Amino acid sequence: MTERILSLTEATRLAVDALTRHKVGPENAAFVAGALVAAEADGLKGHGLSRLPSYCAQSASGKVDGYARPEAVQAASAAIRIDARHGFAYPALALAIERLTALTPETGVAVAAVTRSHHCGVAGHHVEALAEKGLCGLLFANTPKAIAPWGGNRGVFGTNPIAFGAPCPNDMPLVIDLSLSKVARGRILFAREEGKAIPEGWALDPDGNPTTDPAAALAGTMIPMGEAKGAALVMMVEILAAALTNARFGFEASSFFDVAGPPPGVGQLLIALDPGPLSGGAYGSRITELIAAVLDQGNTRLPGQRRMNLRKQAEREGLRLTASQYEQIMHLCG
Amino acid sequence: MTERILSLTEATRLAVDALTRHKVGPENAAFVAGALVAAEADGLKGHGLSRLPSYCAQSASGKVDGYARPEAVQAASAAIRIDARHGFAYPALALAIERLTALTPETGVAVAAVTRSHHCGVAGHHVEALAEKGLCGLLFANTPKAIAPWGGNRGVFGTNPIAFGAPCPNDMPLVIDLSLSKVARGRILFAREEGKAIPEGWALDPDGNPTTDPAAALAGTMIPMGEAKGAALVMMVEILAAALTNARFGFEASSFFDVAGPPPGVGQLLIALDPGPLSGGAYGSRITELIAAVLDQGNTRLPGQRRMNLRKQAEREGLRLTASQYEQIMHLCG
Repeated sequence: MTERILSLTEATRLAVDALTRHKVGPENAAFVAGALVAAEADGLKGHGLSRLPSYCAQSASGKVDGYARPEAVQAASAAIRIDARHGFAYPALALAIERLTALTPETGVAVAAVTRSHHCGVAGHHVEALAEKGLCGLLFANTPKAIAPWGGNRGVFGTNPIAFGAPCPNDMPLVIDLSLSKVARGRILFAREEGKAIPEGWALDPDGNPTTDPAAALAGTMIPMGEAKGAALVMMVEILAAALTNARFGFEASSFFDVAGPPPGVGQLLIALDPGPLSGGAYGSRITELIAAVLDQGNTRLPGQRRMNLRKQAEREGLRLTASQYEQIMHLCG
Repeated sequence: MTERILSLTEATRLAVDALTRHKVGPENAAFVAGALVAAEADGLKGHGLSRLPSYCAQSASGKVDGYARPEAVQAASAAIRIDARHGFAYPALALAIERLTALTPETGVAVAAVTRSHHCGVAGHHVEALAEKGLCGLLFANTPKAIAPWGGNRGVFGTNPIAFGAPCPNDMPLVIDLSLSKVARGRILFAREEGKAIPEGWALDPDGNPTTDPAAALAGTMIPMGEAKGAALVMMVEILAAALTNARFGFEASSFFDVAGPPPGVGQLLIALDPGPLSGGAYGSRITELIAAVLDQGNTRLPGQRRMNLRKQAEREGLRLTASQYEQIMHLCG
């Protein structure tokens, strides 16, 4: 299989072209294409260009409104509600970041509740954008059902990512980004394709019992990272991302992948904190000291470092796509 | 060993008496005693009256300033800094809750950064207090070093609790409260006393290798819940609770238990979110629906339910103290 190498600019241009041919407005297509290419560059292929066919299918079918313009309402002096109007999440989150950045010089903290939203992609990218503006950011997002309440056997919550971004003086922001399932569902899909068992501890079967059979796991639920404690965190994120935003819960949301059903309508909650006034001006030196203490030990590295290295490589060398990936994109470009 | 049963009022009165005899001002003593008795009532003995001797010793020695009055400074329109002035954390957190509750009707979200603080006790109680005022609360606290950066072998971070409280219409608030170590350090101390091995996965020895020897574990570091993902969350909490508040990091903080060293000087970050405006008024019905979905499955229960049941029992029947616990308290009361 021959590989294709595309510059980030070429890849973005192709993705915009594919999206606009599938009922996505040009401004929205730019947000979506930029997000998918940024994920691909960071080596996060599950949120990268592999999503393009399903995104195009969902906008073509009308499950996602590719022309939706997100709308912001000031709910209180430091709080905004954003209606993504069943469009893609990226334009709504970009609007949230813009509004939060405008509010925090006055308020010190601000929150955006995004509702009627869709797949937020790489959760870390949104808080990284806040950190680039000098703000600490927290993002909570819910996703279609995958995890049962602790002790249960039916999915209620999503794999519900938490992301945190912190500005670092004279350096890239520190970004922490994790979904709350022990492993990504993609690893179970892969095991099924390969005909292999999965380790115990990844998933439960439809009766709520541990399983090593990928098919039973896919019919059942994912185990949260940190077991019972993690299950509590999953519920916390579900409340923050969906109850506080009046969005659909995991058990109510349709798939992010296919055209079946109504729009998923999930939610995201984004909090921005201005570290300067909160720390009395000490934040910059304190975060620098903490990072030094972490790196002072052998074998340690900062969270997100691998992504940053892959990003730099992609910026230098372009994105490597398989021939079939490239053909798929060209096919979408008609 | 004969048991003593004390009503919550009696226990609080004795604890206030013990504290005021050890250089704690009466107002601060009321906050501290109330917090310890509330922890004891919830069955959280590690944060309960077992702390009274060490609290008294620390205020008598001056490591904690029992007369400190916390001071609040408005850092921005929705952000306050609270200086606990190396007193107990409880009066500072009570001030934070009071100020956040006053701000949120206007701002929708508000944050308090508490610095030069001490052991926050049951993290869930502070967010429960916000939830009783109709607010969702998030608390991040750092604690003396116990957890290494992932891949490392020396403690940098504390066990760093996260707590979340959510108001529930016509019911007690939902409270999620977890420290980020896989198990509490007390369980390792107990294994050492019993001369038993600990399961692999709880702790690392001083070289950073897994250990089942409780002595090696106590000389080493605690494993975070959720392993590498949990280690990233621990770092997130350290930044929120200490870098954003200009407090001491885990690796800089002295013990919460003994009189050695300077004051611990850790930090807490408390965020209050007003669910009404954020959700456009839908929050109350949404959280009710989510809770119904969780409880609809056999074998599931809400986080914090065990504590609430123990609390009701303690309110009815009083606190059961061992004879030695009771004697210890009477001894402190001189």
